[in-house]
Amino acid sequence: MSSEKKLRAKPIIKQVYANLQHTIEKKQLKPCLVIIILGNDPAAVYYMNNLRKKGAKIGIEVKIEKLDTSISQEALISKIDQFNSNSEIHGIMLQKPLPKHIDEVEIVMKIAPDKDVDGFHPLNMGKLVLNQDSLLPSTPAAVLKILDFYNIKTEGKNVVILGRSAIVGKPLANLLLRKDSPGNATVTVCHSRTQHLANITSQADILVAAIGKANFVKKEMIKQEAIIIDVGVNQIEDAETGYKYLGDVDYNDCFEKAAKITPVPGGVGSVTTSMLLSNVVKAALK
Amino acid sequence: MSSEKKLRAKPIIKQVYANLQHTIEKKQLKPCLVIIILGNDPAAVYYMNNLRKKGAKIGIEVKIEKLDTSISQEALISKIDQFNSNSEIHGIMLQKPLPKHIDEVEIVMKIAPDKDVDGFHPLNMGKLVLNQDSLLPSTPAAVLKILDFYNIKTEGKNVVILGRSAIVGKPLANLLLRKDSPGNATVTVCHSRTQHLANITSQADILVAAIGKANFVKKEMIKQEAIIIDVGVNQIEDAETGYKYLGDVDYNDCFEKAAKITPVPGGVGSVTTSMLLSNVVKAALK
Repeated sequence: MSSEKKLRAKPIIKQVYANLQHTIEKKQLKPCLVIIILGNDPAAVYYMNNLRKKGAKIGIEVKIEKLDTSISQEALISKIDQFNSNSEIHGIMLQKPLPKHIDEVEIVMKIAPDKDVDGFHPLNMGKLVLNQDSLLPSTPAAVLKILDFYNIKTEGKNVVILGRSAIVGKPLANLLLRKDSPGNATVTVCHSRTQHLANITSQADILVAAIGKANFVKKEMIKQEAIIIDVGVNQIEDAETGYKYLGDVDYNDCFEKAAKITPVPGGVGSVTTSMLLSNVVKAALK
Repeated sequence: MSSEKKLRAKPIIKQVYANLQHTIEKKQLKPCLVIIILGNDPAAVYYMNNLRKKGAKIGIEVKIEKLDTSISQEALISKIDQFNSNSEIHGIMLQKPLPKHIDEVEIVMKIAPDKDVDGFHPLNMGKLVLNQDSLLPSTPAAVLKILDFYNIKTEGKNVVILGRSAIVGKPLANLLLRKDSPGNATVTVCHSRTQHLANITSQADILVAAIGKANFVKKEMIKQEAIIIDVGVNQIEDAETGYKYLGDVDYNDCFEKAAKITPVPGGVGSVTTSMLLSNVVKAALK
């Protein structure tokens, strides 16, 4: 029983990657993602290398374009223009963090919307709200995928989302309001200014935590038999291993009370990566 | 006291129109809105003529482009292209209803986003979500205006929105989540699939009704001292006058229990028109 309670990413990503590989072979695609990185942030480099290996296994080429942190806004835009017009490149990703002199809003606008595999271009965000076909941001897509894979019904359910970010909370809220499955939920978005937070979260049939505070959600804050989706990935120093990753939910504390709960790591984050690579294949299909 | 309870549009639109007129004169603008109508729907023609008169009073020219309902998709797009490239036209509006052979999603995409005074283009909708400067859809903008004008604080408040439409419910939810004023609210969106609706609406400090059901909200559904914003405009047959307009809220029933309440007519709808004309001036300023 307890093993069923844990909403593990593994069986999901196994299926997603098998489907992607099948599509790539059947349609004879050569999907290619280029990741632009400014500088050498170690966590970013680790993440990109990981993505490159995952891509290689299923037939997606991941190219890494290392640029100097001193690059000008204009030179970066001209680089993006080159990738936009290169038909062998299907997805363009901009690796964070960006140096302060770069105007991120303008840069994101310069990525061709049909190559914007992050789904952060306003045109893709608007299509998401308007329920038009688009490239969805990976984390909200991962949450939908988990709900769908584990057959968790959202119709008419009270879904409470902790966090109102432009890349998780807000797009996820819009997606769960869609007349679709998953969707048709009653959605509440909470955040730092919310009053009586525990009162609201404890009414949630499904609680999605995306606030970036380690172990924030305790059992007193959740409803008996709630579904808990933990989007948080908080890097915490650890005496033995140097660091470890914790979610926004205190997993051990909430485990008994919850009906289902995603672990960290091995939960939303892993599915997110598979959703990003799915976007590359989707872009290559067009 | 009871007169203060009624959140009337009149003082708001008086201020909005005075400000617009001042801006138009000071900046020597010649703002021009073109409304495209296919056919002769009487309600649409009435609305447009009303808009033309309102515009004329403050110095906004409203041109009406009547086209035949049989116009092809291509011919309509080419018409829009002409208006897009005409620098004397600052706003383009597409009057509903559209005939069935017209693909509305494609047509809206063809309107230049900086002339999209309806705020329905996905690029504008995405910018709204991402908190970037854009042309906002008029009805959600009207709700924000009313809250702001009457100094109704939203920060940390439970706002419940009845209705998840792409033109009211969803954009309003995203706007009220912004780190802004009005904004910073805890937002819940309810709709036809919501369970235990009255239980949710009766927890709302601010209730926004936008579902298109006449007199749907009764006093049992609202919290004591709630703020009630009624977006509904439902045309109902009337033995004496032919027809009359009712809101989504049973005004008389809710009046005593509410702290503040918008009337219909003379509430959100009137402010909406002023927000649309504000968008024309905003577009002309760019």
